[in-house]
Amino acid sequence: MTRRLRVVGIGMGPQHVTPEAAAAIASVDYVLAFGKSEDDPLLEVRREVCRRHGDPPVVVVADPPRERAESVVHDQAAYDDAVRGWHDERAAAYHAAIDQHPGDLALLVWGDPSLYDSTLRIVDDLVRRGLELDVDVVPGISSLQLLAARHRIVLHEVGGPVHVTSGRRLREAIAAGQRNVVAMLNRSLDLAGLDDWAIWWGANLGAPGEELAAGRVADVRGEIALARERARAVDGWVMDLFLIRAPGGGAA
Amino acid sequence: MTRRLRVVGIGMGPQHVTPEAAAAIASVDYVLAFGKSEDDPLLEVRREVCRRHGDPPVVVVADPPRERAESVVHDQAAYDDAVRGWHDERAAAYHAAIDQHPGDLALLVWGDPSLYDSTLRIVDDLVRRGLELDVDVVPGISSLQLLAARHRIVLHEVGGPVHVTSGRRLREAIAAGQRNVVAMLNRSLDLAGLDDWAIWWGANLGAPGEELAAGRVADVRGEIALARERARAVDGWVMDLFLIRAPGGGAA
Repeated sequence: MTRRLRVVGIGMGPQHVTPEAAAAIASVDYVLAFGKSEDDPLLEVRREVCRRHGDPPVVVVADPPRERAESVVHDQAAYDDAVRGWHDERAAAYHAAIDQHPGDLALLVWGDPSLYDSTLRIVDDLVRRGLELDVDVVPGISSLQLLAARHRIVLHEVGGPVHVTSGRRLREAIAAGQRNVVAMLNRSLDLAGLDDWAIWWGANLGAPGEELAAGRVADVRGEIALARERARAVDGWVMDLFLIRAPGGGAA
Repeated sequence: MTRRLRVVGIGMGPQHVTPEAAAAIASVDYVLAFGKSEDDPLLEVRREVCRRHGDPPVVVVADPPRERAESVVHDQAAYDDAVRGWHDERAAAYHAAIDQHPGDLALLVWGDPSLYDSTLRIVDDLVRRGLELDVDVVPGISSLQLLAARHRIVLHEVGGPVHVTSGRRLREAIAAGQRNVVAMLNRSLDLAGLDDWAIWWGANLGAPGEELAAGRVADVRGEIALARERARAVDGWVMDLFLIRAPGGGAA
């Protein structure tokens, strides 16, 4: 029996839930979510969004632990394997939960489902596992857009490109000649050798610990390191991203 | 006297107006907008959004014509000059309108202000012209995200980059080795030599004439050409974009 599965981007919280997303949440029998613990702060935001939009129950599944050893992070093949293994475990956990809970469901995605989020890959896995699902996706505000909004900038120069990548691959992009790059999913901040580049940085955007900094890398590197720790101290977690632009470009 | 100017992303229409955007619109004395004519369809969407959120009056300014000669499009310096000249004229038109209308105002941006939209550059110009403005930006759903949502895809491979550029610069990006590229602002569709690439295409997303197509370029090129004309026939305009990925990559 086919059931509806709605993948809904919720941006950085209730202030970003579009009417389309609100209607999707209100339409389902339950919301399925991973939680690191019952008081996981990102889980609490999902619960708040549900309370405001039809109040579907939130079924919480324990999130499988993820391999984060340094050896894995620096070896592309091992990294890809680790990510795939983690996705498999997450899909198996969701599969079991869906088998136990009848009806239509939604998965609420922090930010937007199309950028550096694994939900859609897990959904593909659920379909491969034989679940009959009628899937639709509702877009949400991405942290990328909130970064640009907070700094009141356009992400590219007039008519020019913006290269969006992960923090892990920032060096690769710069070595390949990219001069206007957004780095998402940073585990740490490595800006060595980029002193004269301009940076627009943000952490924990939309959360109480939100921090922003912008300027020439050499001038703001220390400020960013401190702000990153302040964000972590306030929220208990830190998620940051930045736009970086080579010298000689125009203003953002 | 400083006045507030709010740059508000409205996505593809009322279904994408976030609570934050709605509050911003309801907070201003008026909304300033360009219109090609009084029955400009994009102007009508803005009016509908305003009616739903506090009903601020919409002050319409005639949009200066834009140079679109082929000679300009294919010469980067001439193109940049033409764009700058057009921005100057738009800023002058807004400046005159703001001088005539007291109070706080909002500019409603189709999609998101951070991607291929000139509103923030015009606002910078207004500040340079001496207007005292307290500017803030509210992000909106971008057509890029709606494209991904409609196709139920992530825009990049696991951990990989996505290169976002304009249709004019697609060839430049591919020549530089980019293998996963989003092209926005396409005047026409040139996919010659890309037969084996995968494409996820959309036109007039969120509008009545919305069209989608996906597959191997050689297999869907004809379908896309027809769909593009259908979109234009229904809405009277066509705005399309696509993700294109080199062969050998995984599924989107």
